[in-house]
Amino acid sequence: MIRHLLSGGDVDAATATRILDTAAEMATVAGREVKKLPALRGRTVVNLFYEDSTRTRISFEAAAKRLSADVINFSAKGSSVTKGESLKDTALTLQAMGADAVVVRHPASGAAHRLAEWVDGSVVNAGDGTHEHPTQALLDAYTMRSRLGRLAGLSVAVVGDVLHSRVARSNVLLLSTLGAKVTLVGPPTLIPLDIAQALAPGTDVCYDLDAVLPASDVVMMLRVQRERMNDSYFPSAREYARRYGLDGPRMRRLPEHAIVMHPGPMNRGMEITPEVADSPRSTIVEQVANGVSVRMAVLYLLLGGNNA
Amino acid sequence: MIRHLLSGGDVDAATATRILDTAAEMATVAGREVKKLPALRGRTVVNLFYEDSTRTRISFEAAAKRLSADVINFSAKGSSVTKGESLKDTALTLQAMGADAVVVRHPASGAAHRLAEWVDGSVVNAGDGTHEHPTQALLDAYTMRSRLGRLAGLSVAVVGDVLHSRVARSNVLLLSTLGAKVTLVGPPTLIPLDIAQALAPGTDVCYDLDAVLPASDVVMMLRVQRERMNDSYFPSAREYARRYGLDGPRMRRLPEHAIVMHPGPMNRGMEITPEVADSPRSTIVEQVANGVSVRMAVLYLLLGGNNA
Amino acid sequence: MIRHLLSGGDVDAATATRILDTAAEMATVAGREVKKLPALRGRTVVNLFYEDSTRTRISFEAAAKRLSADVINFSAKGSSVTKGESLKDTALTLQAMGADAVVVRHPASGAAHRLAEWVDGSVVNAGDGTHEHPTQALLDAYTMRSRLGRLAGLSVAVVGDVLHSRVARSNVLLLSTLGAKVTLVGPPTLIPLDIAQALAPGTDVCYDLDAVLPASDVVMMLRVQRERMNDSYFPSAREYARRYGLDGPRMRRLPEHAIVMHPGPMNRGMEITPEVADSPRSTIVEQVANGVSVRMAVLYLLLGGNNA
Repeated sequence: MIRHLLSGGDVDAATATRILDTAAEMATVAGREVKKLPALRGRTVVNLFYEDSTRTRISFEAAAKRLSADVINFSAKGSSVTKGESLKDTALTLQAMGADAVVVRHPASGAAHRLAEWVDGSVVNAGDGTHEHPTQALLDAYTMRSRLGRLAGLSVAVVGDVLHSRVARSNVLLLSTLGAKVTLVGPPTLIPLDIAQALAPGTDVCYDLDAVLPASDVVMMLRVQRERMNDSYFPSAREYARRYGLDGPRMRRLPEHAIVMHPGPMNRGMEITPEVADSPRSTIVEQVANGVSVRMAVLYLLLGGNNA
Repeated sequence: MIRHLLSGGDVDAATATRILDTAAEMATVAGREVKKLPALRGRTVVNLFYEDSTRTRISFEAAAKRLSADVINFSAKGSSVTKGESLKDTALTLQAMGADAVVVRHPASGAAHRLAEWVDGSVVNAGDGTHEHPTQALLDAYTMRSRLGRLAGLSVAVVGDVLHSRVARSNVLLLSTLGAKVTLVGPPTLIPLDIAQALAPGTDVCYDLDAVLPASDVVMMLRVQRERMNDSYFPSAREYARRYGLDGPRMRRLPEHAIVMHPGPMNRGMEITPEVADSPRSTIVEQVANGVSVRMAVLYLLLGGNNA
Repeated sequence: MIRHLLSGGDVDAATATRILDTAAEMATVAGREVKKLPALRGRTVVNLFYEDSTRTRISFEAAAKRLSADVINFSAKGSSVTKGESLKDTALTLQAMGADAVVVRHPASGAAHRLAEWVDGSVVNAGDGTHEHPTQALLDAYTMRSRLGRLAGLSVAVVGDVLHSRVARSNVLLLSTLGAKVTLVGPPTLIPLDIAQALAPGTDVCYDLDAVLPASDVVMMLRVQRERMNDSYFPSAREYARRYGLDGPRMRRLPEHAIVMHPGPMNRGMEITPEVADSPRSTIVEQVANGVSVRMAVLYLLLGGNNA
């Protein structure tokens, strides 16, 4: 197994499949009377969050606790970090305190990779700047596989602000490894011409959502970052919703079996309408549940539970 | 058993008595060498707090941990909530992550009820706006019963800003169910004429604290919310303390067996003087201890520990 | 055993030695497959932090969890404390909720001592104003003993803003109990003439770092508090670093066996250069690891694990 999970491109097809298979086993735990496994008893997982992301933090916390690990939450706001301590010194401190795994969210792209150079334990990238969010890609792949039965050959449209989306980036890398075909959809200002090929050869770009829908097995809507809406390269909110928002009429252009995904939290009425979000095609709540199973699998495999 | 605990009026007399009896059993755990029970092992309790209330959060956290549940704290400040996620989407997310119970504190009256419509698990209202705080009422009832031996027939004076007090509201509902007689005491501006009857027929109102004391078995002082003191309907602080504050001379007008309660945190010198707060009549510290036992009982019964 | 740990002067030589010996046993746990001991199962440790100190809080949290205690974090910011609750009422509340030990960090010197007067459980001072930080002194002593084989007779230079340093204060008290010889080094404005003798007779003062180094077994660099640098008694940052910062050439004036300590977090380039911080003489990372072992020992002994 790999020691860290830093990028959607870190994992080859065999490793990704092993993670997804392990996640499927973990998911059966959720149905049991006692939902805890003793696999990581005595191990310590530190959630090192330099940005607020309650949703991601809780998902990792729930995953680690179901494996009986001890969890320590470290919100870097107001910590010694603000007293000028470097990321490296923080990393060495956490390691010295006995962290077996560090789950890190950081505003700077590349922060998780640097952390991994410094510590002996495992590092899981829980989002670094606009760069990567690999467990999101894994839970998305898990969700597609469980809904549609396979990943190879699927047509996946990733729609929105691709330029700033770590979710898009990690998904393109992982999906191409697993044999799915990705099309990036959004305004030209948010999809640089070279990004698709730079990420994974064979990735397509299209600026017209309606043209892409009829041939898509999966439509993955990206979250609009409200703080970016005032940027000059961002269309007006109304224009964005009109051209790239997914509403009922657009959803009905999809093939009957197609699913609609969103990493959450949603801006209902912006990139997705309530009709779509709450429809049976929507996997949004499943993605959250699958996220816990996938993170259990990642922690279990990285930390060598049962000498995995 | 009920599935949620949303209001002091949710529980009938039999259910309330069962909660109080279970709490009494839970209290015996506090005296043991190992204070943990395995009843909720593998269950997850989420503390979803949209308002700061360290005291209430810690009480629920201690209760859940003594039952061996996993506890996840979700402070909604700075979370995706501030990114515009709706309460419903947050609720569905927590449920998907495997929350068996959500303990919610929210500034909007009615928030806990709405949450309960959306999730399959149990919801415990830990305070919603000026509306309700039912576990406070249960721990108050527990404290009265343990000090005075009974609830039926007790005369309870609830003193202060009744208009804005979820503690008062939940207590009136629960106490009337359990056969106690409540008199609301405070300035006319803080006790609307119709509130007493609207809450529970048989509830009295009196604007004169001194007149009520000699016939009271219990005086429950409400906390003065400092942020309300500048409101036009609020008397000046000095005037309030003079007319409705409980000091030594007033305390001595109570029957010898009567007790003084306060939900905490106290404004010493405002609604209660140190002499009263620290006197043997005061149950303030007991209320805190009883709070943990009552919340253990509530979580245990709602979550069906040992198939309760 | 003592019931509280409030000051580096609280512990006599026998007790300090027992804590260090117990910490050495605890340290062997870190190498095991399962790093948890059941010693404090069912006990509750509350981290009551009125100041941010993620590093210290996490160290205590990791220590308590490895002993299987339940840990409740209480960050006093935004809590009922800010609603005007007194430290005493907070203390009584935590005790009523079942806290077996309260680990307290507070900006006011003496706060931990006052807390200890009010509660039945154990209080551990995790830093009170400019006063004391005794577990830091214990982990420093542990580190010296483990690197140099003894404490009695060691020459220890404590360098920096002694006036405002709880670390310095607790170290001087504990080290003099254990027979080490301390020399306080720093600008005259930061080392009042009477402080050395007032703390522990036999403590020396020297304003010239270079003169002290050749005869030192240990150099303990204190953290410069950036917020103090603008104070009138503080030298300019450049002047401070030039006269009292530890750089490579200065480090080479030390005896070959001497070690360099720092409580962290470091201001690299201010009181210590990266060359020194990352050298084999530096014990900075070891101090962090030892901190967990020492805090495990303190909690274990105070809470009477296995009837200690």
